[in-house]
Amino acid sequence: MPHIPLDPNLPGITGILNYRLETALPIRQLTHLLLRGDSTLTQGERELIATVVSYGNGCKFCTAAHTAAADLLLGEKETAELVKTDLLNAPVSAKMKTLLTIAKAVQVSGKNVTPEMISEAKAAGATDLEIHDTVLISALFSLYNRLVDGLASVTPPDSAFYERLAHILADKGYLPSENRYAGLKT
Amino acid sequence: MPHIPLDPNLPGITGILNYRLETALPIRQLTHLLLRGDSTLTQGERELIATVVSYGNGCKFCTAAHTAAADLLLGEKETAELVKTDLLNAPVSAKMKTLLTIAKAVQVSGKNVTPEMISEAKAAGATDLEIHDTVLISALFSLYNRLVDGLASVTPPDSAFYERLAHILADKGYLPSENRYAGLKT
Repeated sequence: MPHIPLDPNLPGITGILNYRLETALPIRQLTHLLLRGDSTLTQGERELIATVVSYGNGCKFCTAAHTAAADLLLGEKETAELVKTDLLNAPVSAKMKTLLTIAKAVQVSGKNVTPEMISEAKAAGATDLEIHDTVLISALFSLYNRLVDGLASVTPPDSAFYERLAHILADKGYLPSENRYAGLKT
Repeated sequence: MPHIPLDPNLPGITGILNYRLETALPIRQLTHLLLRGDSTLTQGERELIATVVSYGNGCKFCTAAHTAAADLLLGEKETAELVKTDLLNAPVSAKMKTLLTIAKAVQVSGKNVTPEMISEAKAAGATDLEIHDTVLISALFSLYNRLVDGLASVTPPDSAFYERLAHILADKGYLPSENRYAGLKT
């Protein structure tokens, strides 16, 4: 049961963002800029960063939601599964492996990012902006994961829920919109 | 040395926010709403939440900055010192002790917040909104701490720097403004 009264039709982060729309707006705007805005990383690659961070923090709702979003954007389910459980053998570019390594370090502590991790990312072609955005996406999902679990919002058990949510995230992005969650919870 | 090129006149978080103004704006807006917006918690109390979270994450820049801001807003230095090192004996209200306990739990993991912590906060008079905001402030500083240390920005060693920064945070808040950091670094 959530620690504060949340709309039972809006599980996970959705009801929390609906609880205080004023603070939700900049969170949504930041997320949309980072995950859907112009970038040299694809939307699928950026959802993979959100996925490994949520997985590392053990946030079941966020992991399921962003795995489903990555799966939908990438058109297959193998990559998101492997970046979570076996990054070395995941079918992503050498550059993405170095960025996901940085994201995983940041998830534990910013201090865990080593100069070697940064050198390897730059050697693999990562730009300063890609490194900045990777650190910030990891930091942002460290915020989301704490918000979702810290308020004990509901985590639906059925994978179909996350597939419906992934379509909203892929089609509409992260900004607020009218009837955003229509049909989310059946 | 920072992992990406940052303005040497803007240490800690200041140069990172200046690096990408587009993503900095919603971060600043969220922070201003939570720490300076209307609230039943004082600005000093909210800076104490930022302080204990930054201290727990071992982020030296953020701890020094928000300790200095709390000291300035509270008019003394004892409270911020004790909430970091001896919360039980800190001169804050019973309600603030329960909220700071929740903030410290969220800093480690959202899952560390127990129903007992929430019951104790409510018994001490905490509202649902105060609990929401406490969890979100803790999550937000978990973002900031990761951003500052994950990009290895510079941490000035002199306490006078943080006193100058605290005056900016107390007088201007967190929104962007022209010449915001004039005279910050001497």
